[in-house]
Amino acid sequence: MPINTNIAKELKLIDKFIKKDLIKEKTISGLYKYIFKSGGKKIRAKLSLISSSNVKNDNRYKLASVIELLHTATLVHDDVVDNSSIRRGIKSVNNLWTNSHGVLIGDYIYSKAFILMVEIGDKKILSELANATNDISQGELIQLDAIRNLDMTLNKLKKISYFKTGRLFEAAAKTGAMLSKSNQSYTKNITECAKNLGILFQIKDDLLDYSNNLNTGKPPFQDLKEGKVTYPFFFAYKNASKKEKKRLEDLLGNKKLNSTMANSLIQRLNGLKKTNELADKYHKNTIDYAKKINELTISKEMIKLADFAYDREK
Amino acid sequence: MPINTNIAKELKLIDKFIKKDLIKEKTISGLYKYIFKSGGKKIRAKLSLISSSNVKNDNRYKLASVIELLHTATLVHDDVVDNSSIRRGIKSVNNLWTNSHGVLIGDYIYSKAFILMVEIGDKKILSELANATNDISQGELIQLDAIRNLDMTLNKLKKISYFKTGRLFEAAAKTGAMLSKSNQSYTKNITECAKNLGILFQIKDDLLDYSNNLNTGKPPFQDLKEGKVTYPFFFAYKNASKKEKKRLEDLLGNKKLNSTMANSLIQRLNGLKKTNELADKYHKNTIDYAKKINELTISKEMIKLADFAYDREK
Repeated sequence: MPINTNIAKELKLIDKFIKKDLIKEKTISGLYKYIFKSGGKKIRAKLSLISSSNVKNDNRYKLASVIELLHTATLVHDDVVDNSSIRRGIKSVNNLWTNSHGVLIGDYIYSKAFILMVEIGDKKILSELANATNDISQGELIQLDAIRNLDMTLNKLKKISYFKTGRLFEAAAKTGAMLSKSNQSYTKNITECAKNLGILFQIKDDLLDYSNNLNTGKPPFQDLKEGKVTYPFFFAYKNASKKEKKRLEDLLGNKKLNSTMANSLIQRLNGLKKTNELADKYHKNTIDYAKKINELTISKEMIKLADFAYDREK
Repeated sequence: MPINTNIAKELKLIDKFIKKDLIKEKTISGLYKYIFKSGGKKIRAKLSLISSSNVKNDNRYKLASVIELLHTATLVHDDVVDNSSIRRGIKSVNNLWTNSHGVLIGDYIYSKAFILMVEIGDKKILSELANATNDISQGELIQLDAIRNLDMTLNKLKKISYFKTGRLFEAAAKTGAMLSKSNQSYTKNITECAKNLGILFQIKDDLLDYSNNLNTGKPPFQDLKEGKVTYPFFFAYKNASKKEKKRLEDLLGNKKLNSTMANSLIQRLNGLKKTNELADKYHKNTIDYAKKINELTISKEMIKLADFAYDREK
């Protein structure tokens, strides 16, 4: 299996392909260009390219673009849902324009992704991506239940991080393998590897929310201020005395919380430590599956992604 | 071509099919059931069934359900965009739950429609529906430009009513014809007929907003209160003196406007008369294309739909 390792160069092609939207309406092209200006990490597109690296036709780029478009559509809708003001270090669509613009340009990007995936024309790929999109929306809906929900369970948190984030990582790798008509063992290993990578990615995201590092690209303690119960809060709350539980409850959904205090309380109650342990577990799973991939270059690329996700500071 | 005219009975099957969602998560199933409880007119599903009436397999019901799901997803997102409190006579999702719920359950319904259309597995149908969905979002985005926009043009209003409403009517008929592998002339005539029907439907919708009839299922003057320039306002404004223009500008986006006064001003400036003339034109176009359909029963059904859209009071 000949492998193209020049992924960085290819990601630039994806970026170009995505940005080339032919819409003439000024409002729409203005929104579209703004959203794709900042680029982002494109880790999902990268995953798609890695998984499909033995394919030789343009559908490979199209598929990676579809994955990135689907991801971006969910981000734009997420920002409306979370009322977030900042995305990728710049103002979110709902902040610079309105919630309405966010909802509708999100729909525009979703449907653009569907147009492109229909062009690829592989029924199994279409089915996987349609199902993944449905699962992502389920993950987001279930997460709404996590708002100010002190009865949150670990199982529900795991379902959220899988559906919300792991699912598209999984679909990116799986459809890449489908496109390259790879054997079952390759498909299974890279799919599982990507699923674990996605969950790891989400766990780190939850951790970064509790970081005092100002360069994460997002305002700190956003989840906590929104009242969203994520892993660090969950573990800390489980570990807290009655009095400490009360203090944690006061932080949840408190827009004016004291960051230093919040951070030290969650830390003292092992919220960060326990979440880091969970990240360790998913990091290990990712590496284990990566090692099972019998294409050495792809295996190495996946290990690099696992380490990147594990070490990321933003 | 044997034709099943028992459409009303079939619509009940569609309703049952749509309602049968297997999701177990309570939040999601609760939202889903609520949205589909009231049913609605299902005119688009009806159109799909009429157009595909010589098909004999279950894909016909699946396709009609897909059309209805796509329509419902746009309604749910529309209500968030327009901040509407009432839909089909009951509270909207964004009103009873939150905007976030509206955005996400809309995404859920969209992706459910995509899952079903992938199951149908016809690439041309998929392409038409993906493109229609993209066009609908464009129509909605262009409509955002119509808010408090006194420079609105007739061409832009026509584009909005086509993209926002006519496009899905068109796609419903076209994909129905595609599914039944009908000849080119049939496909062309029913597609054009449906497109004109959809635009007529939207024009009547704009007119109903200016009606003092309290049984339209929506609060009256909602468009005007939101500041949305639609046909009646557009024609009235075009016809107004400087002083009258000023009065119209005061009504646009005024949440506390006097309905009787607004209605009589728009009426006096021929806003309703001109819009009715436009409705006449699209009604005639619809009938003309319906008459060209060489399947008598289908032709008659389309004429019935044209008359229903033309005479509707809600």
